[in-house]
Amino acid sequence: MKTYLDCYPCFLRQALTAVRFTGADEAQQRAAIDRVLALLRQIEPTATPPEIGDRVHRIVRQVVDGDDPYRQAKAASTREALALYPRLRALVAEADDPLDVAVRLSIAGNIIDFGPDHTYELWETVERVLAQPFAVDDRAAFRAALDEAEWVLYLGDNAGETVFDRLLIETLELPVTYAVKGGPTLNDATREDAEAAGLDRVAEVIDNGADAPGTVLARCAPAFQRLYDQASMIVAKGQANYETLSEEGERVFFLLQTKCPLIARDVGVEEGSIVLKQG
Amino acid sequence: MKTYLDCYPCFLRQALTAVRFTGADEAQQRAAIDRVLALLRQIEPTATPPEIGDRVHRIVRQVVDGDDPYRQAKAASTREALALYPRLRALVAEADDPLDVAVRLSIAGNIIDFGPDHTYELWETVERVLAQPFAVDDRAAFRAALDEAEWVLYLGDNAGETVFDRLLIETLELPVTYAVKGGPTLNDATREDAEAAGLDRVAEVIDNGADAPGTVLARCAPAFQRLYDQASMIVAKGQANYETLSEEGERVFFLLQTKCPLIARDVGVEEGSIVLKQG
Repeated sequence: MKTYLDCYPCFLRQALTAVRFTGADEAQQRAAIDRVLALLRQIEPTATPPEIGDRVHRIVRQVVDGDDPYRQAKAASTREALALYPRLRALVAEADDPLDVAVRLSIAGNIIDFGPDHTYELWETVERVLAQPFAVDDRAAFRAALDEAEWVLYLGDNAGETVFDRLLIETLELPVTYAVKGGPTLNDATREDAEAAGLDRVAEVIDNGADAPGTVLARCAPAFQRLYDQASMIVAKGQANYETLSEEGERVFFLLQTKCPLIARDVGVEEGSIVLKQG
Repeated sequence: MKTYLDCYPCFLRQALTAVRFTGADEAQQRAAIDRVLALLRQIEPTATPPEIGDRVHRIVRQVVDGDDPYRQAKAASTREALALYPRLRALVAEADDPLDVAVRLSIAGNIIDFGPDHTYELWETVERVLAQPFAVDDRAAFRAALDEAEWVLYLGDNAGETVFDRLLIETLELPVTYAVKGGPTLNDATREDAEAAGLDRVAEVIDNGADAPGTVLARCAPAFQRLYDQASMIVAKGQANYETLSEEGERVFFLLQTKCPLIARDVGVEEGSIVLKQG
């Protein structure tokens, strides 16, 4: 997905939210904003929002001189989600259609996001998403692809959301390779976060070699790129994976909530929708 | 009021909204954003938000090569408000406390604003503001000042809101000088807009000589500055007048709705409040 002019104020707002989140002082906040203003004047027209977001959050990390300012927040998100895990697993176990419930829960977990906005109520979101009609509903194609696939490449998104992904992976009757980020970016899950969510017990956890949001293929490690090329079915979680992979064709299935008006418009749905979309 | 870092994303968003409002093409929109990004890197730490807003909207006017891109929108706002005028006048006439109702209506009219957000429903706002408790309530001091004053300097805000100001002025038993902007800026009322609202029938209409939002005294004409210095009572409408005059002392009475979280915080109230505040 291309970067719209509407994204520019949002990058600035995200930078401010992120740098404050780290406890930065006023001078550090000003330094971050000034560098993001300079960055925004130099954006290549073809850059996707996560490619720019990557550079924005890199500036924030540099300004506060921290390797992972979201480490504690990510651990807290994972703990919060793990506390719900028994209830969530019971929902799947008792469902008439466990796969449907597990898909919905995985999408519900996508509410955990420190990018556009980080206020949410997790259990309320679960209840909403369980009842909410899909705005894009490629569930039949998703089931058909699962029947054909020998394994699934599952592209994770945020820490905490990982726990919801684990439930879906436990419901799939296929080997899953779960890809996390190669380094910290915003609250995206790294190997440490995936393991804290117990994903290593249900999937092979790999990292994509990149510390950018979404999946910026050109930035990923060669080993990940080869795996990506080989996969016949890819589950891509969250907005940033949609923004970076929306042109990648029908083997990719996007599971997300639309939390940004521009992404919602690009998908062709309302903000606040739940989406299972084949690429 | 000082400019916060939170204002930066908002300026960028306002620039984009404004330049699109004028019908600008993509290249013009990009040019405006690029110039605003450059401007934001050069802000003096002491500049108030309206001083920066002035330069933002000047960039927009230059990019679209228009003298007053909001002329038609302002005329439409005035027509919409004039259509309500008979009902509004009846509300005042039938009131137990006409001054109180007229003050509330003047504040209700402050919802007309193309700056932070330009979606509103005028009559709904009237009904809300008639019933809403004041978050800052200096009405007693306001009445006392009216009893003492020989005349009132009334600093207008937006076109359309002018009609609501007219009702308040008709209720005051004092000569009023109504100051408008010296040139177009956003949807702020100029002499043309004030006259369209019929303000010249109830007040002496003057312009402040500046084409900036609010009242940037250093930018105003000497004649206006003299009048401002002489006034013993000043009614200042809207957020931008608060932002530029909040340190001007107790002869200034601010009548506004808080539509911006930063201004609300500066006033010490919630967003969406109605305020009659003595400076």
